[in-house]
Amino acid sequence: MQKSNVKAQGASVRRKGNSARSKEVIKEKEESRTFTYGKVNSMINIDMPVKISFLGGLNEVGKNMTLYAYGDDMFLVDCGLAFPDTEMFGVDFVIPDFTFVERNADKIKGIVITHGHEDHIGGLIYLLNVINVPVYATKLTAGLINGKLAENRTNSVTVNVVSPGDVLDLGEFKVELIKVNHSIPDSVALAIRCKAGLIIQTGDFKIDTNPIDGEMINLSRFATLGEEGVLCMLSDSTNAENPGYSQSESKVGDSFANLFTRAGSRRIIIATFASNIHRIQQIINIAHITGRKVALSGRSIENVVGIAAQLGYLEIPEGVLIGIDMIKQYSDEELVIITTGSQGETMSALSRMSMGEHRRVEIGEEDYIIISAKPIPGNEKTVYKVINDLMRLGAEVIYEKMYDVHVSGHACQEELKLLISLVKPEYFIPVHGEQKHLRKHAALAESVGIPKENILITDNGREVSISSEGIFITGSVPAGGVFVDGYGVGDVGNVVMRDRRHLGMDGIIIVSAAVDASSGELLSGPEVFSRGFIYVRESEELIGEATRRAASIIESFPPYSFDGMAMKSKIKDEVSKLMYEKTKRSPMVLAIVLEV
Amino acid sequence: MQKSNVKAQGASVRRKGNSARSKEVIKEKEESRTFTYGKVNSMINIDMPVKISFLGGLNEVGKNMTLYAYGDDMFLVDCGLAFPDTEMFGVDFVIPDFTFVERNADKIKGIVITHGHEDHIGGLIYLLNVINVPVYATKLTAGLINGKLAENRTNSVTVNVVSPGDVLDLGEFKVELIKVNHSIPDSVALAIRCKAGLIIQTGDFKIDTNPIDGEMINLSRFATLGEEGVLCMLSDSTNAENPGYSQSESKVGDSFANLFTRAGSRRIIIATFASNIHRIQQIINIAHITGRKVALSGRSIENVVGIAAQLGYLEIPEGVLIGIDMIKQYSDEELVIITTGSQGETMSALSRMSMGEHRRVEIGEEDYIIISAKPIPGNEKTVYKVINDLMRLGAEVIYEKMYDVHVSGHACQEELKLLISLVKPEYFIPVHGEQKHLRKHAALAESVGIPKENILITDNGREVSISSEGIFITGSVPAGGVFVDGYGVGDVGNVVMRDRRHLGMDGIIIVSAAVDASSGELLSGPEVFSRGFIYVRESEELIGEATRRAASIIESFPPYSFDGMAMKSKIKDEVSKLMYEKTKRSPMVLAIVLEV
Repeated sequence: MQKSNVKAQGASVRRKGNSARSKEVIKEKEESRTFTYGKVNSMINIDMPVKISFLGGLNEVGKNMTLYAYGDDMFLVDCGLAFPDTEMFGVDFVIPDFTFVERNADKIKGIVITHGHEDHIGGLIYLLNVINVPVYATKLTAGLINGKLAENRTNSVTVNVVSPGDVLDLGEFKVELIKVNHSIPDSVALAIRCKAGLIIQTGDFKIDTNPIDGEMINLSRFATLGEEGVLCMLSDSTNAENPGYSQSESKVGDSFANLFTRAGSRRIIIATFASNIHRIQQIINIAHITGRKVALSGRSIENVVGIAAQLGYLEIPEGVLIGIDMIKQYSDEELVIITTGSQGETMSALSRMSMGEHRRVEIGEEDYIIISAKPIPGNEKTVYKVINDLMRLGAEVIYEKMYDVHVSGHACQEELKLLISLVKPEYFIPVHGEQKHLRKHAALAESVGIPKENILITDNGREVSISSEGIFITGSVPAGGVFVDGYGVGDVGNVVMRDRRHLGMDGIIIVSAAVDASSGELLSGPEVFSRGFIYVRESEELIGEATRRAASIIESFPPYSFDGMAMKSKIKDEVSKLMYEKTKRSPMVLAIVLEV
Repeated sequence: MQKSNVKAQGASVRRKGNSARSKEVIKEKEESRTFTYGKVNSMINIDMPVKISFLGGLNEVGKNMTLYAYGDDMFLVDCGLAFPDTEMFGVDFVIPDFTFVERNADKIKGIVITHGHEDHIGGLIYLLNVINVPVYATKLTAGLINGKLAENRTNSVTVNVVSPGDVLDLGEFKVELIKVNHSIPDSVALAIRCKAGLIIQTGDFKIDTNPIDGEMINLSRFATLGEEGVLCMLSDSTNAENPGYSQSESKVGDSFANLFTRAGSRRIIIATFASNIHRIQQIINIAHITGRKVALSGRSIENVVGIAAQLGYLEIPEGVLIGIDMIKQYSDEELVIITTGSQGETMSALSRMSMGEHRRVEIGEEDYIIISAKPIPGNEKTVYKVINDLMRLGAEVIYEKMYDVHVSGHACQEELKLLISLVKPEYFIPVHGEQKHLRKHAALAESVGIPKENILITDNGREVSISSEGIFITGSVPAGGVFVDGYGVGDVGNVVMRDRRHLGMDGIIIVSAAVDASSGELLSGPEVFSRGFIYVRESEELIGEATRRAASIIESFPPYSFDGMAMKSKIKDEVSKLMYEKTKRSPMVLAIVLEV
């Protein structure tokens, strides 16, 4: 790692002046170029380009990971995880496919992390099991990563702590960190230089003109780089559908102050994201002012608050924080409990409270509960279930619809346009979002003057080559989702998932029999078992019928010409047919014929 | 069924003037009364009350069903279904528990249906398999019910077609139908009279001052009844969280006109609810004006449009409607396709289009797609998936966030308050919603002057008794959800569901062996199979280890003291333990020991 003045390296960066020529080139190549998702072209005869391979984060929210290559040097940006969809039965989470990274392990100079959210760091412990590369992250991000490494006993890795303004020397690449605002402190954007030009990857960001830690996004640095000439920008599309500006995190403080008053003498319980240090800071501040103690409930929030306080990202006045086991010693009006579970997560502290299963906190009419987060799409039903259950226990619950302000960590339309206007990139790639977000972000870029043909909407698994001559999709890299289930990484794939779905929807019927291997005579069984199919009582007759059919199939085979495969296959077909006829359902059927 | 003038029966209804006395009674009984969910009191010494048992629709959205009893006479209002939660593996839908209805079959004089939505009629065909009662519904509702009866061959039942203004004679009860606005035509509220007093149940409603069919909700009838004196009102809580007024359905017409212009020469595809006849009428009207043909795609939309047109609820100009198999004969600019799938339903026409699996409609850049519905909570992810996929095929998609107006079929806060103010009920029960909706609606009622102690938030399975002396929870009735899966009604219960969840999350391992029944000697196997666990390749070693352990367990049993149960139980425990140790997962383990 090397600190140096960025301007010293400016010489090797292509200037904006080239764009006139390069646009002509683009025009000539129009026919062979692709801006539509899914087509792949090969590129001939242009300057050596910088290549960007997307290993995650496109057409999805989660598992962000990007690989940059110039010549023989490569480096990575972020390595996140994604949470499973409901149809990914039994999957804990999803990480990027590391095949391409493994294949190029010797070329990779390092991995730079933009911030400490799970969708940017959650895959890292798995990546570091596969390749050994230096990790670069800002102080809080490094603290959170180190926490994970320690928990998973991946001790051999050291995370290099870097700061905004630093420039990392990664072979052909020089990577400068730029301070941005986001819903976790210490977030950075990256200015990536190589001989092909300067690329800006924003990471997750917003423009907060009134940030809690007093430090605004370094807009002037973006402006200076824009003047210098930026070849391409990759920008956060999460809120590209939301008009206007995101609100300042400090607005939440005003709202909390108001809600604390309305709570009166009741106990206050606030659910928020564990990583939202600024929000937790504000809650602590207001609690301190109003003479309440703060207790934490939930492993992740205790963990993150511990790390953040230790590293100086949280200022906790003496005596404000108490253990959750101490709350019995205080009256309701003296307490604020900050808890996990704002997304209705099944095992979270708030969810346990709502079901009366929390060991320390019993919910009642003297509770005033604030859900300080919006449900992430897909979580609505579980969040509402928790809210309904808390209300049924008598609590007042303040949530989304009754909440004064919602503050997001991601830039909205006007901020996105502002940043594009400052950076004035020649090419633009919207990243970090579903197709609808990427599309909307592309339209925003066009609205502030980026020519449509200079905007590329691409996908995970695409290699994009960029030089002054143009932007091209030039290849494919392996980039699927790898399922993590318990200790297993990647051992649950599509076949297993299809089976789980089938088992979960329709259950299983098992037909087991023992047969004389030479004569083919039925020695025992068939016994028929069902699990997850229908009530045993209801199915008795059906199971009896299946048993009789299986027996008659076994007996129908001619003696002394035993064919186990054919027998099993016939049993399976006949029993499946029977079940569908009688129940209009298709349970999985497994026939086992033991040869004695 | 009897038509008569409602006012003629007014004499038996308690007047508002009684309320002063009854409030004193309430005050005296304060201690024993319950307005908090979950407590049950018994009532002593009051006038014979009307009893309302809630069989569905409280603390949920769906399967609405209410039973009214006075003396020995009973009748039902609605019989809906609910759609399964994601954790209800393999369940097609959920219907109310009919136990209490069956038990009182001889007392039930009929069932009155408020409107033709699935959450009000979807359970009816199952109910009519259980009891035989007269069904009363308005013309369109009856048409939709008859369609269902025919499909399910429940032909013996006749649905009595009734109209707003009619009064039904149901033993001790006289039930008057009152026209309301909703997102399906021919919706009614009910004014229910018995000797205990007059009760109004709104059904689903909104106030549309500019309705497509020209008929506004009969507000003056509500006002007249209010003047007469209403004992209790049960009102629709769906939109109790939404401030202001719902928009008129005719606003959607303006919006469509605008969108049709923006579509230019592209093909227009509109996804909407099949039952939203007024919306379909507006699409047909604009298509006709702009010279486009209309094709329908999706079984339910074809079905409902057929019934509605036949009964005169849809006016389709000559030649506008074409078969979906005719679309190839028209250019893009001459076409509108109305399709099902606005909630992202997996097998719907729109979903099939998005996956390139629709037989007639291939999506491309010349398609302009309008999703004319908001995702119902829980459906967001599937709806967004369909949108993203349609976009990736090149189409422009107009959805929720980019849509000019969203028009709901349910009254918002100001409308709810307005109706309460007109009806001035002595007691108020918010229905049709989750706890958060019921709570909010209760607060709205309080804000327009209903005393807090006269408002009851209750639950499915509660029997509520109301008379001039007060409102009490006086008992419980069976009222759970009954799962429908294929042909099976109620044969999938909690045990089966728990097994399905287990199978779906973790898969199954089956250990099968044949053993000599007298000596206990292992004759064949053990053979170990897994489904939905992990990749076979990855699990080879693990399966080998499980096989060895099972074999050694069988062999460890002393000879000639065979105990199949003990053997199976030991195999199950040991294999489970092994799997958890090695994989941190807990597949279901089934041990089968065949005795030869």
